[in-house]
Amino acid sequence: MKILVINAGSSSCKYQLLEMDTHAVLCSGLAERIGQDEGRLTHKIAPDTDKEEKIIRTAHFPTHVQAMELVISLLTDAEKGVIKDKSEIAGIGHRVLHGGEAVSDPVLVDERVKEIVRECSVLGPLHNPANLMGIEVAEKLFPGVPNVGVFDTEFGMGMPQEAFMYALPYELYEDLRIRRYGFHGTSHKYIAGATAKYLGKPLNELRSITMHLGNGSSMSCVKNGKCFDTSMGLTPLEGLIMGTRCGSIDPAIVPFVMDKKGLTPEQVDTLMNKKSGLLGLCGYTDMRDVHAEVEKGNDRAALALKMLARSIKKTLGSYYFLLDGNVDALVFTAGIGENDDIVRAEVCAGLEHMGIKIDAKENSTRKPGARTISTPDSTVPVLIIPTNEELQIAMATVEVLGK
Amino acid sequence: MKILVINAGSSSCKYQLLEMDTHAVLCSGLAERIGQDEGRLTHKIAPDTDKEEKIIRTAHFPTHVQAMELVISLLTDAEKGVIKDKSEIAGIGHRVLHGGEAVSDPVLVDERVKEIVRECSVLGPLHNPANLMGIEVAEKLFPGVPNVGVFDTEFGMGMPQEAFMYALPYELYEDLRIRRYGFHGTSHKYIAGATAKYLGKPLNELRSITMHLGNGSSMSCVKNGKCFDTSMGLTPLEGLIMGTRCGSIDPAIVPFVMDKKGLTPEQVDTLMNKKSGLLGLCGYTDMRDVHAEVEKGNDRAALALKMLARSIKKTLGSYYFLLDGNVDALVFTAGIGENDDIVRAEVCAGLEHMGIKIDAKENSTRKPGARTISTPDSTVPVLIIPTNEELQIAMATVEVLGK
Repeated sequence: MKILVINAGSSSCKYQLLEMDTHAVLCSGLAERIGQDEGRLTHKIAPDTDKEEKIIRTAHFPTHVQAMELVISLLTDAEKGVIKDKSEIAGIGHRVLHGGEAVSDPVLVDERVKEIVRECSVLGPLHNPANLMGIEVAEKLFPGVPNVGVFDTEFGMGMPQEAFMYALPYELYEDLRIRRYGFHGTSHKYIAGATAKYLGKPLNELRSITMHLGNGSSMSCVKNGKCFDTSMGLTPLEGLIMGTRCGSIDPAIVPFVMDKKGLTPEQVDTLMNKKSGLLGLCGYTDMRDVHAEVEKGNDRAALALKMLARSIKKTLGSYYFLLDGNVDALVFTAGIGENDDIVRAEVCAGLEHMGIKIDAKENSTRKPGARTISTPDSTVPVLIIPTNEELQIAMATVEVLGK
Repeated sequence: MKILVINAGSSSCKYQLLEMDTHAVLCSGLAERIGQDEGRLTHKIAPDTDKEEKIIRTAHFPTHVQAMELVISLLTDAEKGVIKDKSEIAGIGHRVLHGGEAVSDPVLVDERVKEIVRECSVLGPLHNPANLMGIEVAEKLFPGVPNVGVFDTEFGMGMPQEAFMYALPYELYEDLRIRRYGFHGTSHKYIAGATAKYLGKPLNELRSITMHLGNGSSMSCVKNGKCFDTSMGLTPLEGLIMGTRCGSIDPAIVPFVMDKKGLTPEQVDTLMNKKSGLLGLCGYTDMRDVHAEVEKGNDRAALALKMLARSIKKTLGSYYFLLDGNVDALVFTAGIGENDDIVRAEVCAGLEHMGIKIDAKENSTRKPGARTISTPDSTVPVLIIPTNEELQIAMATVEVLGK
């Protein structure tokens, strides 16, 4: 059975077609610069295999419809296509940022669900309108194929009340639904499942801490397989230091900066989301650039690296205590988590005293797949597990469709 | 030698006269409602001893000068006075909130220091102007007696750069000095010293975590006797949930609430500082009221208690990891820390798994002085040490005066 996964952004669209019997990725791609003069489509057949073939097309895509029409023509191309007809697609899974408190479990999309996604744009102004557009384009271009919404808040919505509430006036929760939702839920859920599987433990007994470290970063504290706490909050700004996001700061800084610099609420939000984090500290957002600068003796880059590792280590400690030190695994995932041995080593440095011991050689060796990077005598295993949000969305889609 | 300690607020003034040879408090008091129609002075002779005597006077105090004149007349009263003449006072120690990066160690007050305190009003708008007024009143009423400023940021200013910087655009640090300063420094410094003494360990080798839990609450992570991290930041809003303060929240909530509720920067600051915390969650600010409500089955109060304990436990875990689990003591202090056995028990609940074990009977028994409330086999001793900010200020004053 074939499932198409769509992640629509405001001017882009990522997709992946999966064969669910084998979990093989038949093709994946990214349409960019939709609405601009010249758009670009990068389409990969059999990605990350020996048979990978890349096709790049440039064209003007006035809207997502034209971009997806080109995708369909490539999918069903007589020579290069991976399917004969788009009717072979059994279902389409859509990544959706925010469903508020109304919907967070994967759901078959109908008018009510679309209305909720539309209403929740207030909580996800950059993503929700684009996600909704992706759904509407799919409805138009794949008539009769069911669409499933998979929400990025799904895993975080399982948190207990004492974890999701803020100590603000209670009316702000009642009136504006201000609470911690948590994001990267698809990844955190996938990793919780994969960790249980790797350890050979039932998911509903799993106690673990996941460090999803990428361009956006968040951590989750997993208790009995469910989210017990997570670092992102009402929005994906809270928590760890990220590429361009400040993470948690003294909230009184916000009115202070607005007052001193004459900023509007929107401008200060942009400052914290787009001009802060590693970028604000040292001028680079990509950890590979930061490491290169540290090598050259750049003090600001060294500071940024130290602060990033410290913010992860502090959150690790919080969750370790929330789990009362009864932890099955610490798991690194996503771009930085999977590939950056320096960050991993910095985060775990010193913890040998607590019995948490990284195997330096294993940590610095690149290998595919899930693996252990701690020593055999480490009190808690430290793992790397590659995340796979598309597969998680596709699996959720299959489940909702009851196939 | 006698030292007067003054803590001047905008409409109040706390004071204490100490005999430094014995550390005895000769008298202490509080002048309130300065500038209002009817002010009130509560003056205690030999407080907290068998000989304690309380004198209450009501009068109109147009400014702090008139209130302090009444204090002087009581101090030197023929019958009730504890000194014959105000010239017996060797020095006056003033609590000052904020000296920015320019001054944080205790310092003899001169025109330059006063100018710095005035300039730092931008960082401490409620406290600094009042603290400065206290100094000027003392200069006027005690001519020739040296004044020493003791800053609430003192201990926190010892933090390393990776702890005090925020991941905001670097220019905000250069232009506006936006950084973590930390507060309750006098208490955290006093407790670090008292912990080292209690454990019989040199201060410069001490690794401990102090939980200063009162109406305002903050924690400090002590490494080699110095502040390695602390929970309050640019202002005393950051960190733990407090009586009326929200502590750390997703900073994106601030522009979101401003936008939805039409609030100014000042109004949102007030909302977070005065209408949040325990008050915002359940309508009570005092933990004794919160406990009474929990007893009555009030769900919101139960939520507030759980959230408070959780925020302390998470910070404890962060600092435990920052110290690599190599910790000499966990210390409770200040109003809640010293007196609230329920909060202490909630914070430590579950940590037995990590070897941190509270002795339930010892925890629930009230006793004066520094003491251990963990079991003999606890991997880390858990202590209660009563804080004494006035004594710390007086000791710092003696040191600055070189007496």
